[in-house]
Amino acid sequence: MSEKKPVKIVTIGGGSSYTPELMEGFIKRYEELPIKEIWLVDIEDGKEKLEIVGKMAQRMWDASPYDVKVYLTLNRREALKDADFVTTQFRVGLLNARIKDERIPFSYGLLGQETNGAGGIFKAFRTIPVILSIVEDMKELCPNAWLINFTNPSGMVSESVMRYGKWDKVIGLCNVPIASMMAEPATIGKTLDQLTYRFAGLNHFHWHKVYDECGKEVTQDIIDAIYSGKDTGVPENIHKLPLFKEQYDAMKMLACGYHNYYYRQEEMLKHGLEEYHGVGTRGQQVKKTEEELFELYKDPALDHKPEQLAKRGGAHYSDAACETIASIYSNANRHIVVTTRNNGAIPDLPSDCAVEVSSFVGATGAKAIAFGPLHPAERGWLQCMKNMELCVEEAAVTGDYGMALQAFFLNPQIPSGETAKRVLDELLIAHKKYLPRFKKKIEELEKEGVTIKDDVARELTEQGL
Amino acid sequence: MSEKKPVKIVTIGGGSSYTPELMEGFIKRYEELPIKEIWLVDIEDGKEKLEIVGKMAQRMWDASPYDVKVYLTLNRREALKDADFVTTQFRVGLLNARIKDERIPFSYGLLGQETNGAGGIFKAFRTIPVILSIVEDMKELCPNAWLINFTNPSGMVSESVMRYGKWDKVIGLCNVPIASMMAEPATIGKTLDQLTYRFAGLNHFHWHKVYDECGKEVTQDIIDAIYSGKDTGVPENIHKLPLFKEQYDAMKMLACGYHNYYYRQEEMLKHGLEEYHGVGTRGQQVKKTEEELFELYKDPALDHKPEQLAKRGGAHYSDAACETIASIYSNANRHIVVTTRNNGAIPDLPSDCAVEVSSFVGATGAKAIAFGPLHPAERGWLQCMKNMELCVEEAAVTGDYGMALQAFFLNPQIPSGETAKRVLDELLIAHKKYLPRFKKKIEELEKEGVTIKDDVARELTEQGL
Amino acid sequence: MSEKKPVKIVTIGGGSSYTPELMEGFIKRYEELPIKEIWLVDIEDGKEKLEIVGKMAQRMWDASPYDVKVYLTLNRREALKDADFVTTQFRVGLLNARIKDERIPFSYGLLGQETNGAGGIFKAFRTIPVILSIVEDMKELCPNAWLINFTNPSGMVSESVMRYGKWDKVIGLCNVPIASMMAEPATIGKTLDQLTYRFAGLNHFHWHKVYDECGKEVTQDIIDAIYSGKDTGVPENIHKLPLFKEQYDAMKMLACGYHNYYYRQEEMLKHGLEEYHGVGTRGQQVKKTEEELFELYKDPALDHKPEQLAKRGGAHYSDAACETIASIYSNANRHIVVTTRNNGAIPDLPSDCAVEVSSFVGATGAKAIAFGPLHPAERGWLQCMKNMELCVEEAAVTGDYGMALQAFFLNPQIPSGETAKRVLDELLIAHKKYLPRFKKKIEELEKEGVTIKDDVARELTEQGL
Amino acid sequence: MSEKKPVKIVTIGGGSSYTPELMEGFIKRYEELPIKEIWLVDIEDGKEKLEIVGKMAQRMWDASPYDVKVYLTLNRREALKDADFVTTQFRVGLLNARIKDERIPFSYGLLGQETNGAGGIFKAFRTIPVILSIVEDMKELCPNAWLINFTNPSGMVSESVMRYGKWDKVIGLCNVPIASMMAEPATIGKTLDQLTYRFAGLNHFHWHKVYDECGKEVTQDIIDAIYSGKDTGVPENIHKLPLFKEQYDAMKMLACGYHNYYYRQEEMLKHGLEEYHGVGTRGQQVKKTEEELFELYKDPALDHKPEQLAKRGGAHYSDAACETIASIYSNANRHIVVTTRNNGAIPDLPSDCAVEVSSFVGATGAKAIAFGPLHPAERGWLQCMKNMELCVEEAAVTGDYGMALQAFFLNPQIPSGETAKRVLDELLIAHKKYLPRFKKKIEELEKEGVTIKDDVARELTEQGL
Repeated sequence: MSEKKPVKIVTIGGGSSYTPELMEGFIKRYEELPIKEIWLVDIEDGKEKLEIVGKMAQRMWDASPYDVKVYLTLNRREALKDADFVTTQFRVGLLNARIKDERIPFSYGLLGQETNGAGGIFKAFRTIPVILSIVEDMKELCPNAWLINFTNPSGMVSESVMRYGKWDKVIGLCNVPIASMMAEPATIGKTLDQLTYRFAGLNHFHWHKVYDECGKEVTQDIIDAIYSGKDTGVPENIHKLPLFKEQYDAMKMLACGYHNYYYRQEEMLKHGLEEYHGVGTRGQQVKKTEEELFELYKDPALDHKPEQLAKRGGAHYSDAACETIASIYSNANRHIVVTTRNNGAIPDLPSDCAVEVSSFVGATGAKAIAFGPLHPAERGWLQCMKNMELCVEEAAVTGDYGMALQAFFLNPQIPSGETAKRVLDELLIAHKKYLPRFKKKIEELEKEGVTIKDDVARELTEQGL
Repeated sequence: MSEKKPVKIVTIGGGSSYTPELMEGFIKRYEELPIKEIWLVDIEDGKEKLEIVGKMAQRMWDASPYDVKVYLTLNRREALKDADFVTTQFRVGLLNARIKDERIPFSYGLLGQETNGAGGIFKAFRTIPVILSIVEDMKELCPNAWLINFTNPSGMVSESVMRYGKWDKVIGLCNVPIASMMAEPATIGKTLDQLTYRFAGLNHFHWHKVYDECGKEVTQDIIDAIYSGKDTGVPENIHKLPLFKEQYDAMKMLACGYHNYYYRQEEMLKHGLEEYHGVGTRGQQVKKTEEELFELYKDPALDHKPEQLAKRGGAHYSDAACETIASIYSNANRHIVVTTRNNGAIPDLPSDCAVEVSSFVGATGAKAIAFGPLHPAERGWLQCMKNMELCVEEAAVTGDYGMALQAFFLNPQIPSGETAKRVLDELLIAHKKYLPRFKKKIEELEKEGVTIKDDVARELTEQGL
Repeated sequence: MSEKKPVKIVTIGGGSSYTPELMEGFIKRYEELPIKEIWLVDIEDGKEKLEIVGKMAQRMWDASPYDVKVYLTLNRREALKDADFVTTQFRVGLLNARIKDERIPFSYGLLGQETNGAGGIFKAFRTIPVILSIVEDMKELCPNAWLINFTNPSGMVSESVMRYGKWDKVIGLCNVPIASMMAEPATIGKTLDQLTYRFAGLNHFHWHKVYDECGKEVTQDIIDAIYSGKDTGVPENIHKLPLFKEQYDAMKMLACGYHNYYYRQEEMLKHGLEEYHGVGTRGQQVKKTEEELFELYKDPALDHKPEQLAKRGGAHYSDAACETIASIYSNANRHIVVTTRNNGAIPDLPSDCAVEVSSFVGATGAKAIAFGPLHPAERGWLQCMKNMELCVEEAAVTGDYGMALQAFFLNPQIPSGETAKRVLDELLIAHKKYLPRFKKKIEELEKEGVTIKDDVARELTEQGL
Repeated sequence: MSEKKPVKIVTIGGGSSYTPELMEGFIKRYEELPIKEIWLVDIEDGKEKLEIVGKMAQRMWDASPYDVKVYLTLNRREALKDADFVTTQFRVGLLNARIKDERIPFSYGLLGQETNGAGGIFKAFRTIPVILSIVEDMKELCPNAWLINFTNPSGMVSESVMRYGKWDKVIGLCNVPIASMMAEPATIGKTLDQLTYRFAGLNHFHWHKVYDECGKEVTQDIIDAIYSGKDTGVPENIHKLPLFKEQYDAMKMLACGYHNYYYRQEEMLKHGLEEYHGVGTRGQQVKKTEEELFELYKDPALDHKPEQLAKRGGAHYSDAACETIASIYSNANRHIVVTTRNNGAIPDLPSDCAVEVSSFVGATGAKAIAFGPLHPAERGWLQCMKNMELCVEEAAVTGDYGMALQAFFLNPQIPSGETAKRVLDELLIAHKKYLPRFKKKIEELEKEGVTIKDDVARELTEQGL
């Protein structure tokens, strides 16, 4: 591979608190992935954080044996020029937007789940137009680059890039599968390299099967381990709650942590409401953690990822992202679970849609492993969710209110009716600034006098946040 | 057609209050469908009702110009011998079972919808083993007969006949589509024979489009009529509530009345709980109506269908059923909306599953009209529901508790969690008598001390009803 | 239906010898289909025939009780203005083109079958650009009209209208199914109205099943009738040859006459070569028949369809065409076998492709009846042919030589190799005048010195015919 | 992996001339795949060859640093007991059967291609019942073993194991893909480890795409290399002939050598007939090579694979087979092109059928990489061939003559008609000994006096060979 040139990496949303995690991942893999330069891009509103985290990032490289320059810029186009890999971890509207995504539904007793629920739908509405504009820039400035997306909802955002952006060199990432793969092997006395994993589904909505080094399925052993109280890597940000054992008996697969929102909806809602009325929603908690992190990052002596970042919920993100980029660069064909084009891997879904599946990642990108058809019990959920995603993406692109309503009601976390419609309306108003495509409808709602009931969300909105 | 022999019709569940409706339909169509004899079959528990309604049925024929003999029997096999058409309208556990299906979920604040919701799942659990035993008898005693099923949940029951009974000559019926077709034309100043209807979906879960005599689509005109307050034929037994107009704007199809349980879930639950805490659930109301009907039927002077039957909720059943039978017999190829094998008519669903679609019904049975693919917004719902049905049927046949739980949680009317699981458990206990395949699990639940919280349901169960 | 206005019919290729057949069909159905005016359109080269047949057409109407005016024009756009139905029966390059389509392959010992074989591929190449330009005119001049296409290859031409013309109101017709339905019933002592037919496949490539008035399948009875020597309606223009009985035993369906080109390829080739070296190809025979017909048509006393037209091969065309138009106009929902969008009717083929299937035809056009999946033996043929058609259409639209070659080799009538490629090249040269999209390649071939080996075809080409 | 036990390998058809190739492959990979014992199984007729090659095999191991015992047996059940891997390379009827498979079609001027053509169909008819009986033994004697099939037609044989044998642990192998991967990289100045290959199709009927270490597609570069005269690894046993360049322009994929039988049919037939009338068919040539090989093998001094084996046509078989077995054993997840269950990898084919595709092979077997949909030009061929295979397998299992005829005519190498039917009949008679399921039909044919026209084939048959 000696002929390959060192790479230019561009990270959009570079001011994120995740950036040090990413730097750590690149430093660890430098020998496989020689980096020439890293560009951290952010917007005016994120300038201060970009400065803090950017300096921290440069310190990390300076403390490493490698000579890599970290560039900080608010000029996305300058950064994208001739990029090899563009990673996206931006958050339109920052954590304040997430707080509204969560609090407005909870204020009406509904789940505001921030990736696949009502909150996630709005995150998609805000993010998809932006990612599509990034793709337009990439077509012009770095037409051979790979887009490695971590911005949630990672599945819908990545699918929009393919479907509406007509850009195929995109891979969506998430730390949920890797977290399972890090934690589960030990529960049955194995190491990861002994096991074969097969994931299939959608982002934050997948199942998996596991086999040992002799090819024997050990899925049931891991299920048993769950019920003996062992930690199987459900991310910190999800309320941990085992599924009913009888469901696993029927399912014969492991479900991801986010399945709690579908298989234990009642309890997830109850827990969410407790937080809403108590310590604050997850977004509010994360905001505090983030503020603490940025205080740490300011310390000019800090030149490595601080422990506290793990609490943020993004553990293993760098493992997913850097491993993917390194695998592409070095054509390593490693097994990584990513969002990529289905191509038949899950024959129950259209060939042209995006799925999150076990793939082998190499120079040609991610190639999904054919998983085969699912049992109706999982197929029903999966087809429902994929179609919900397609409706969200269509609404995000068209700004069609009726389609937004269809997506809302099709979403299994949202019971249809007046209340859900009210939540939709308040969320539109709350995010007006980031939803130009819904402008006409939002103005109608404002004329009708729709206001935000939740105090925190209303105040944030009134402050233009 | 002169060579065709007059037909023998067997009605299982012949003691039903619907029987006079059916008789009226046959009498109306006698010239097209010359009947030789009608056998009304019921079980020991229904003997009294069978006597009452059977005599009433004979009086109706005697008052007609036609010489048809109505046989009453508790011996199903005797009746089935050489039947041409077997109609099924039996209700395992009678209306008391329905009352439990409804009240137990409501007692926990959940919808107990009796056809596609939690109640409907249990109706399927009770009914499927019985219909399969009828099919076994038919294979032996009337292998050329058509099975015309009205027993709800009509879609799942009919699909089980094909899938597990391996019996293809089955057609499932429902009065919902016909009710729309009776009411809608007038709302736009048309008559039914001027319009072309295209239905597609599942039983109690379908959409339709309408075209005028020039082929111009008039779906939107009917949607507009709904919002100007016109009656579009939503059955009496459903709480009438228009969908949000914006949804129709996106959908561009008419939804059936039962869609309220999915598109207006909050309001349907609220209304159901009001009835539960007030006048009683729909099953309780129907039970009263039925008692009144049987009082009427006892009148030896009554020889025609009484007006009050319309209130029962089954209006137009006879139109659907008798029209289907007559269309088969006379090879009329009339457009009827029935449950039949998909065969690709809705390409978003497996070819071998059952769907409820616009079909042409003639001597070869019902031939579905290819509807083509649906938009993701409807496709998501449809695929979710069909897979839910497949899980229900599998659980009904195997008695697998895990699969029952999977079906429960996949059902969009049922929020997953402890409460839903509790409802499942109580329903199992309440229907123990009719659920031999779940016997082992029910005994476990009894050992665990699970009891029924709702007073009415508990008392019915304690009385062995 | 009293509100419906009398219709304007436009026939493109109005100078065809078929026109009197069409007139006869309209006259027969006038009560159901009141016609206001008929426009016969042709091109400069067909002016003389248009005059002859147009006068004949007017005489036929004048001899009828109906007052209908037949307009003759070379101005297509004038004719299309406000048309209700546009029928297309034009033949680009007239019968001389067909003669080349047949003779060039035969001159190399290959089948030149003029609808689905090498000849048919070139007929598609010549016709598709023309039909697409007609559609463009229709979009502007008669956007609500139905396009009723009889121009062969009817399946590919109609599919191109949908796929490339983006025009959905198109129905493709053929007389093959109707010929079977006219002839077969008598072979088993039945009348057509007693039987139910189910056709599925592609134009000139379909199978069917038949059921009696009791719904009992009688397909095998008709197969038996074939082997007892009865005429089952294979069109006059096809060499009649029963399939091997053992194939029918496996197939359990009736095949159309054109299946001989696939199931009895050796004998069809032998027969074709005999004609080629003897009486002339079918095209040459038809040309003579046509000349005789036009002589007859010139007779100012002739005011009805002459007997001789039946020999032409187009018997029942008017039944198919006029029946379809009448069925749409009067919303009759009659069973007609047409080329229409699949929509899942044959689930083995893509939903969006065109198929020739049993349909019910009414005001909304043709609605395919879901046929369900085929056995692999037929599925293999069908998928091969449909994909071949798609390649032909793509090549017709793009003028891509490689794609033309792919289509040629995929066509089961054409053994791949140098000879077939040579045939492709000579056909391109022979039809240069009508293949502007292949201009560049044809000029290359001319430069390479490719000439036409068959004398007749070469001379026709040299004469600019 | 220290916990894994050394493996027992059973090779059915162990007396084959390929066995030394296999031994060499195992010796090379011993460190990765520690073998305990190898059982070579053959039948009575192959006893002598088994002795010769078996001793040779033991000498090869004795000359290696490893202590492995080679057991020779005619008792298949004894050998299968507790096997870890069962490899099948048997040839029912030996090379004499192949000679008949080839000569009988050629005697009528038809291709007798021995894997996918008429010959291959009969190889499948002879082999499938035998492999199914092996599977029955395996279920009893080594239920955890992997079946690694090299017996041709490898795709149909492997699919039958899954479909009719209900045995999922099967992988079908072939040396065609590996031969391309060995030869092609050098043609563009690359090494195999720099390139990424993506194969999709069926056994002896696949296409592939190639990408360099930067993910850039280099398929076209290899196509160009073909036309500059470079060797791209078409197996020795296939007449080498490039496709028409224009086809590659349209196809944008590389075709396998066997595609010549479909894309250059005329020339392949011509070449085959020359051999038939000259040096003898490929089977006759191989028979001579084999006899020479066995003479060599008898040499007690020979303890390594002789050069001459490469001429046999099976070059790289051991690479495919041993690599697959080693990859499973060591869970290496290497990219190997194998026949495995589709599972959606080629969405144009049913999920449950067998395909030959790029897969990653590890402890759980072969997992197909999702290739995605093909262009209609390739899809048409592929669907035709897969359905042809399904018909062959059905006929092999049922002995249904009509289905055999359907398979014959659907096969693109066989022009339908009397001659093809005659070839089918003669082949049935020629292979009577190995076709018990077709016994009844063969006896009928004998009664009708059908005899074999080709002298060589007739004499072999008369000699009971």
